Amino acid sequence: MTSPSRHLLALDDLTDETLERILLLAERLHADGTIGRDALAGATVGLLFFRGSLRTRSSFEAAVAQLGGHAINLTAHTDFWELEYRDGRVMDGRAPEHVRDAARVMSCYVDLLAVRPAPERQSWTVDRGDQQIRAWAKHASVPVVNMESGLWHPLQALADLFTLRRALGGTPGGERRRLCLAWTHSPTAAPVSAAHSMLVAACRAGYEVRLAHPPGFELDELVVERAASAARASGGELIHAKDLVSGVDGADIVYARSWESLDAYGDGTVAASRRARSTDWRVDERLMSKGRDARLMHAMPVRRNVEVTDEVLDGERSLLIEQAAARLPCQKALLLELLDKSAGL
Amino acid sequence: MTSPSRHLLALDDLTDETLERILLLAERLHADGTIGRDALAGATVGLLFFRGSLRTRSSFEAAVAQLGGHAINLTAHTDFWELEYRDGRVMDGRAPEHVRDAARVMSCYVDLLAVRPAPERQSWTVDRGDQQIRAWAKHASVPVVNMESGLWHPLQALADLFTLRRALGGTPGGERRRLCLAWTHSPTAAPVSAAHSMLVAACRAGYEVRLAHPPGFELDELVVERAASAARASGGELIHAKDLVSGVDGADIVYARSWESLDAYGDGTVAASRRARSTDWRVDERLMSKGRDARLMHAMPVRRNVEVTDEVLDGERSLLIEQAAARLPCQKALLLELLDKSAGL
Amino acid sequence: MTSPSRHLLALDDLTDETLERILLLAERLHADGTIGRDALAGATVGLLFFRGSLRTRSSFEAAVAQLGGHAINLTAHTDFWELEYRDGRVMDGRAPEHVRDAARVMSCYVDLLAVRPAPERQSWTVDRGDQQIRAWAKHASVPVVNMESGLWHPLQALADLFTLRRALGGTPGGERRRLCLAWTHSPTAAPVSAAHSMLVAACRAGYEVRLAHPPGFELDELVVERAASAARASGGELIHAKDLVSGVDGADIVYARSWESLDAYGDGTVAASRRARSTDWRVDERLMSKGRDARLMHAMPVRRNVEVTDEVLDGERSLLIEQAAARLPCQKALLLELLDKSAGL
Repeated sequence: MTSPSRHLLALDDLTDETLERILLLAERLHADGTIGRDALAGATVGLLFFRGSLRTRSSFEAAVAQLGGHAINLTAHTDFWELEYRDGRVMDGRAPEHVRDAARVMSCYVDLLAVRPAPERQSWTVDRGDQQIRAWAKHASVPVVNMESGLWHPLQALADLFTLRRALGGTPGGERRRLCLAWTHSPTAAPVSAAHSMLVAACRAGYEVRLAHPPGFELDELVVERAASAARASGGELIHAKDLVSGVDGADIVYARSWESLDAYGDGTVAASRRARSTDWRVDERLMSKGRDARLMHAMPVRRNVEVTDEVLDGERSLLIEQAAARLPCQKALLLELLDKSAGL
Repeated sequence: MTSPSRHLLALDDLTDETLERILLLAERLHADGTIGRDALAGATVGLLFFRGSLRTRSSFEAAVAQLGGHAINLTAHTDFWELEYRDGRVMDGRAPEHVRDAARVMSCYVDLLAVRPAPERQSWTVDRGDQQIRAWAKHASVPVVNMESGLWHPLQALADLFTLRRALGGTPGGERRRLCLAWTHSPTAAPVSAAHSMLVAACRAGYEVRLAHPPGFELDELVVERAASAARASGGELIHAKDLVSGVDGADIVYARSWESLDAYGDGTVAASRRARSTDWRVDERLMSKGRDARLMHAMPVRRNVEVTDEVLDGERSLLIEQAAARLPCQKALLLELLDKSAGL
Repeated sequence: MTSPSRHLLALDDLTDETLERILLLAERLHADGTIGRDALAGATVGLLFFRGSLRTRSSFEAAVAQLGGHAINLTAHTDFWELEYRDGRVMDGRAPEHVRDAARVMSCYVDLLAVRPAPERQSWTVDRGDQQIRAWAKHASVPVVNMESGLWHPLQALADLFTLRRALGGTPGGERRRLCLAWTHSPTAAPVSAAHSMLVAACRAGYEVRLAHPPGFELDELVVERAASAARASGGELIHAKDLVSGVDGADIVYARSWESLDAYGDGTVAASRRARSTDWRVDERLMSKGRDARLMHAMPVRRNVEVTDEVLDGERSLLIEQAAARLPCQKALLLELLDKSAGL
């Protein structure tokens, strides 16, 4: 039995103190990949993917293996089936099993469950509730880690914070560092989850955050409120920029992401038409030069020469590989923390 | 090279003595998850899934990993292809490879093969022959474990026996314990395999077994004969109940399962119509109260409020999670037995 | 950072000296499966399958596990997505990510990448460029192993050489050994890759190689030239046989393979019609008896009684299982070589 506080559904589930401990441990794991090599010996971690994954899947499984544990990878559609997550239903539809049962059963076999749910994508009002990952957390008796839900992507945010600190130096103090979270055009928009987690994480960390996107691409209202309140508490600031150029102006970091329109959520035609109005929201060297020796971040996958030009991606400004690489030590540190194995490392 | 007796295609492949040894070892592994942690060091186990799986896949891979071995998970459709299993064929059809060759090749790479075949589902007369899993056993030179064929589900039966003994106490003696194997309605029926294995296992273990199902849902005739003969030998009894209530009357255990109609096998329309006539075959608290302080078992997945009500599933009567949890220690014990690694534990 | 010479895209990437070292180590690993059990402790290997696999997948993952390392298995379509491999493109099509990025990211998580790309199958002129696997090798900072591209299948060739040497004894000397690479009919042709790799490997090893196929099934011109030049250098010989019988005449080894027509590449209708003209290209006992106590090799999967009769496959002449078994020690030896872990074994 594990207390609910052991779950990581959003980065906000970690107190400042725990987050700091994880980031410091991640630093050490980054510097020396052999630290903790047997820390998870005998431990089993279940990875459940209801949507595909390259980076998260690889880095999480590598993290478990390099700590001496074993990851069981389960992929919906090939390995198992649809699950009901709402309580009290008469289950005469497509789903033959309830998360309540699947979560309790899996908790008998593994020491931690990492889940990437598939939002239903009909209504943002429904999907913003993150009901699937919450159901896993509610019913599992082992820690549950969110590997990207509709609302949040805490593993990405953890690696992003790690990368920001390494690029900009420590906790911001004295001169406030400036980050632009910049919407970019793509023919296939990404979920809002990584942008949400980054926005709150950067505000909470005390950065000046400029949010730049075309009309119709507003992030979730409650998430933006949470970010603003986090900025107030940390001495940071959240500013809405009217366009890419004013967003990037004087920025130390440009964090590019092509997130989908929540206004047009679940309506592919409207969404495509809306995206098509903003094909000039692209990051190139000229835009980057408006910043203050600005570096580029992006959670990937990145569509080259659509979202960001080759020139920027392959130049000195790019932090993308560092950012992706950070997933490994950050997730190792998180696993050690959640499974109480960080002592003595 | 391994003798054929090393295969587990049905629970009947295990002598009473071996079964007892496995169940006793499973008790110890259940009590202490660290026992045998390195027993399978260097061993490789192949898991071949021609049909999807959640519980079996997770618990088997966890069992291998927690004993220090490595499981290779292969899923048809994504990892490989259709296999021919009939001898002497001119292979100019869909299957590019024969089980004879695949089994011999895989035997070079792994120490044990666990297989979940996909019955053809055209004719029960054909599928009851379990030809695919038998072909694997015939041609492999390592032990083959049946992870649920058309006819049998021995891994489930092993966990079921383990759970029964824990719930009812030891080998039945003195007062004979009563178990009702109860058909339940579901919009999507499960294979008969788990019901078959449970029926024979419970009869062999000496319980009084009442079999309750609507007309048209008779289990395989030879399986029922085998169960009756096992009951005679063990001092148990197999009784056909005319309905759910008389089946559950005085029962210590209600084992619910929504198995398919073998009469309508391979004919989806007839099968659906037959199921639709028996929507009232559902387990609820009122039914359970007819038993003798009755507990519920179910091999899962369970459709809540269709097969069994939430009230029963989430109440004190349910043994479902214990039953699913038992898969892990029972499969560990089986692996140790089949791979001759149980000595000295 | 690893030098390009660390990649294995074709068997020719290995010098004679390195190849010899690998084959000798493979002999020892074949004789004793416990050698090197911890040699890859802490190492992580990424397996990326853009096409399905049974033998390569199983034997590669088993090799990694039995050396103490961990293999992460990623399968396109279930785990990730299409990747762009051409430089400089505006990525507004189906592929959301570039190999340049995927390869650099994966290099942060694993110590070696093994890739089975999916050729586009539109044009042999394009696919013979092996652009996908070359892109992985170009951008990865860890060794890249080709698990079968359009042009080459070096892992198969390694196991084939190993099997040839065991069957025929050492490096050929004195009496020159004769091998017939024999096209066989199948309703579904295999890629040319294994035939290509075998042809060059056997010529390079000094055998007299007779290539027998119907008109329209010529192998890639540059590959045949490379084979001929390798034969000249090694003292072997490459001879084009006009039919199966003259190819097999006096052969020590018949290497059967049903490869596709490069002339009809990407045109299913023409290809099927061309194959249909040569249904008598089948290996049976009568054909084998033309050889010199001839043994059969085949890279599998083999369509029984279409490509080769049961009588030959199940008789004393068949080396198929030995050949498949050789994948394991050969791939172990290769891994140890590429990861610099063979010292002291």
